[in-house]
This record gives sequence, structure tokens and C-alpha cells, in this order.
Amino acid sequence: MRVGVDVGGTKTLAVAVDEAGRVLGIERRPTGRGAAAVVEGIAAVVEVLAGGRALDALGVGVPGQIAGDGVVRHALNLGIAEFDLAAALAARLGLRPTVDNDVRAAAVGARALLPGVDSLAYLNLGTGVAAGIVRDGMPWRGARGAAGEIGHLSVDPAGPVCPCGQRGCIESLAGGASVAARWGRPSAFPVADVFDAAAAGDPFGGSLQADVVRGVAAAAQLLVLTADVDVVVLGGGVSHLGERLLGPVRTALRAAASGSAFLASLDLADRVVPVPSGAPVGAVGAALLAEAPAGVVPG
Amino acid sequence: MRVGVDVGGTKTLAVAVDEAGRVLGIERRPTGRGAAAVVEGIAAVVEVLAGGRALDALGVGVPGQIAGDGVVRHALNLGIAEFDLAAALAARLGLRPTVDNDVRAAAVGARALLPGVDSLAYLNLGTGVAAGIVRDGMPWRGARGAAGEIGHLSVDPAGPVCPCGQRGCIESLAGGASVAARWGRPSAFPVADVFDAAAAGDPFGGSLQADVVRGVAAAAQLLVLTADVDVVVLGGGVSHLGERLLGPVRTALRAAASGSAFLASLDLADRVVPVPSGAPVGAVGAALLAEAPAGVVPG
Repeated sequence: MRVGVDVGGTKTLAVAVDEAGRVLGIERRPTGRGAAAVVEGIAAVVEVLAGGRALDALGVGVPGQIAGDGVVRHALNLGIAEFDLAAALAARLGLRPTVDNDVRAAAVGARALLPGVDSLAYLNLGTGVAAGIVRDGMPWRGARGAAGEIGHLSVDPAGPVCPCGQRGCIESLAGGASVAARWGRPSAFPVADVFDAAAAGDPFGGSLQADVVRGVAAAAQLLVLTADVDVVVLGGGVSHLGERLLGPVRTALRAAASGSAFLASLDLADRVVPVPSGAPVGAVGAALLAEAPAGVVPG
Repeated sequence: MRVGVDVGGTKTLAVAVDEAGRVLGIERRPTGRGAAAVVEGIAAVVEVLAGGRALDALGVGVPGQIAGDGVVRHALNLGIAEFDLAAALAARLGLRPTVDNDVRAAAVGARALLPGVDSLAYLNLGTGVAAGIVRDGMPWRGARGAAGEIGHLSVDPAGPVCPCGQRGCIESLAGGASVAARWGRPSAFPVADVFDAAAAGDPFGGSLQADVVRGVAAAAQLLVLTADVDVVVLGGGVSHLGERLLGPVRTALRAAASGSAFLASLDLADRVVPVPSGAPVGAVGAALLAEAPAGVVPG
């Protein structure tokens, strides 16, 4: 049995899966702030799922940059600047985990749930925007682990200013934090409020919604025209808008291709698909990415 | 001995190389228009280089879409709509070649000339703009052979109209044909004229030059942030501007990264390099991509 843990900014979700990635059990709890709380939260869900049995492998997906040795960097949502998470969990559980970036893990998990797909990009639409690319079942990391980090590609030099200093970055158009800041009204889910306002005829809401749609459409188009993945899977909090987002994004992609036989031949719109609803792709992917040590009983 | 042929719109260049890609001989001649003339031109240079010796493999790079079976489609510069080039050359030479896209072949050839580079994107700045991506020494084709076809990604919704119907495509900003059409003056090398005019203070030339620079910079940035290749190699006719193009492109990439520790950490500017001057990367790559049949004496 493998266990995968997806450490999000608000909740830590763990799954027990078999070698094929079939989910045998799920466990979740709120994520604490700071390294010690994160370690305890992971250990707690792992011990519950293991239930005293030996694990074949443990994988952890974390929102941050991951050095090959399991060191987490710049995980701001977790209150972690730099921390050797793999070593800390090995000490706590007696089982060294494989730690990877959460979006990359979700990409691997999404592929496990999409039979027949050889390559995909998992486009995470959350606080920020980034993609994980999977080819032949393996994550594509790139020369410096930056493959799929498309959030700070500018697609409009007259677009909104991004904290990165550029204008019109995909993340500045479609990232949850950017939309919330531009919307400027307290909300549990600002992007949904923006879409509601747009539907009600609010011009500002309409312009922000248009930016979200063109940002996501641009991201999908560039992932296909650069990596030519089979499909682009929309995931992350903003993707919970479902058809309200997917429909306009597909319309934008059809419009972009309407004047070009080449672009039309790529079927961009039909290659953008939603992540299977409620599927714990991040945790499943973390479990599948885990390198298997000898079976160990955690705790 | 392997022979590789790079069939360009104006000239057909062939090289004989050893298994390591070292060039043993070069042969060139003008490219004729139409399938029959293209076949004869290729056969002529191959026979000269073979000199009656058996070839281990023959590869041909062609500017067009290539079906896996060696059929060339939409090679407009060669006057070919659809033609089974592999079959025609097999009949003409008694040796079935491996036919591939010229940019993809150039990417493989560029890597052979850049020791220590594991992954690269060869950004072809010619009549159009497209990239070939090489990873682990092998070309990345993608799900539909469209990997690296970045020319029709829009980076400015207010940019020039592209024949594809979008505005501000990378190709509309930096493609030779687009620059020539916008410049609107007869010239053997319009992009060089535009850069000369800009240097002489001509405002229109300056604005066209700025578009070329930002188009190339955007292409390099998106290739690194999506595929995270070690280096982006600038090739193609427009790249003959050398430092006049590379300098401003690097300046633009440094400016884009100046406000972001993440972008700065990627060293975008230093990862853009010129193709080794005069190196026949397209022909060398075609030779290296060729699948080896039994040794056959062509002709």
C-alpha cells in the first residue's frame, strides 16, 4: 500500500492507494502553519491511513519549490521559507517520503485518472497559476525544475501589473490572488463573485471575468503549441467554476483558431478538460511519484 | 557514413557525417521548385557526397509538416502541397531516407554541436517562427507533431494582425515575412534593413525592430518557462543579425526578470545563445535523425 499526501494551504489530504493508483482510503485535516505543524499534520493522516500496517511508499506534494533532496523552499502558504521536510518526516515516521511539488504531483495523479492519455498538462488555477507536464507517465521537470511555470508569461503588455514586475502575466489575469486584489471586496471565493457580478451585468466584474477567461485560454494554447500535450486538465480552486469557466475558455480557443487551418487542426478547445470532480489528484499523484523503500510501519 | 540533407527554400545543403556527427563533407546547390525538382536536387547532392560508397543512413529535413511515413505536406516554399518524398527518393536512390521537419532536424543538429547541453529549443527565425525541442538528445514531437510550433501564440492583443487571424502572434512580430510585409519596401533582407533604419533613427524602423526584439524575447521566455530547456538556440535567417538581435533580446529578458526573484533565478538572458556561425545544423541533424537501413550505394 502506498500513501500520498497533498499539503494545501488550508487542508492536508491523504490517500492510501494500490499500485494502480486506486484509492483505498482518504483522510484529511486542516493544515497548520509552520514547519512543525505541517510535519505533525502529515504524520497524523499517514498514521491513520496506515493503521499500523507497513507502507510500500510515502509521497508528499507541497506548494513550493522542491530541491531534489526533499528540501522545501518558498512554501509561503505553509509559512515555510526553507525546510528539509523529507528528513523531518523520516525522523518522525521512520519512513523517508518522496517530496515533490504539489502541481507536478497533481499532474501525475490526473493522468492516472485519465486512461488512454499519454501526455498532459495539469493547469493549476489557484492563488497562482502554474502547470505540471506529464509525458509517458513521468513528470517533466525541466533543466531547473521550472517546466510548466507559465504563470509569469506576459500575454498582454497593456495588461494588469503583476507583482513580478511584468504586465499582463497569465497569473495577473487568471490567478486567484490577482483577481481578489483587483476585485477588492472581501469574499470567500472572489473569482466566483466576479463571475456572479459579470452575470448580473456589472461592467467591472465583466472585465475581470474576461481577463480570467483569456488568461486560461492563453495558458491552454501555449501549453499545446509548446509541449503539444494530448490534453490540458484544468484544476485548482478556480476550476471549481466548472462549465462557467470551461465554456467561455473553449469559445475563446475556437475563436483564436477560427482564422487558421493549422490552429483549427489542433482542436485546442476539445483538448481542454476539467479534472475529474472531487478526485484527489494531488494526493494520488504524490503516492504514485513516491519511490518505494522497504516496507515500513510508520510511527 | 551518414548523409543529411537540409532542403531550404533557396538552397539544398547536404553533409556527410560520421556517427558522432562530425562533418566529413558538404555539398550544396539551388533548390528547384516542385516535387520532381526537389527530388533531383536531393539525389544530386547525395550522390556527390556518397561518391559511390555505401551509406549507413540518409536523412532529409524539409520545411513542412511531415507525416510519420515520410509524406511532406504544406511545404509551400518548395511548391509542394502533399508528396511522398521518402518513397520518391527510395525509388530514385535505392535508399529509403528518414524525412523530418527541418526545424526539428536543426534542433538535433544544434545539440550535437553544443556538448554538455541535455535539452534545448532551436528557435528558427526565418520567414516564419517555430521551435524544435530536443530532450535527452531526442526531438520532442508532441501528441500531434506540433511541439514547438510557437509562432501563433499571441503575446499582444493590440499587436499586428497575423494571417492566422489573431493579433500579436510571435510570428507577426518577429517573422521575416511579417516584417517584410509591414516594412513594405523591396529588399533582399528586410529585417536587416529595418534594423539599419532603426539605427539611423527612423521611427517606423525603430518600432518594427522593437517588435522583432520583443517577439524573440517572448519566444525565448515561454520556451524556458514551459519546457525549461537548458538553452534556447537562435537560428534561421533573421538570426544572422547576430549581436544586433541577441543583445537587445537579452536586455529585454533581463528587464522582464528585474522585478522577480523567480524569473531572475532562471537566468533567461544567459540561456539564449546563437547557433554556431555557419554550422549546417539542419543537415547534420537530418543525418543524425536518420534511421539506419543496411548500407546501400545510392544511385
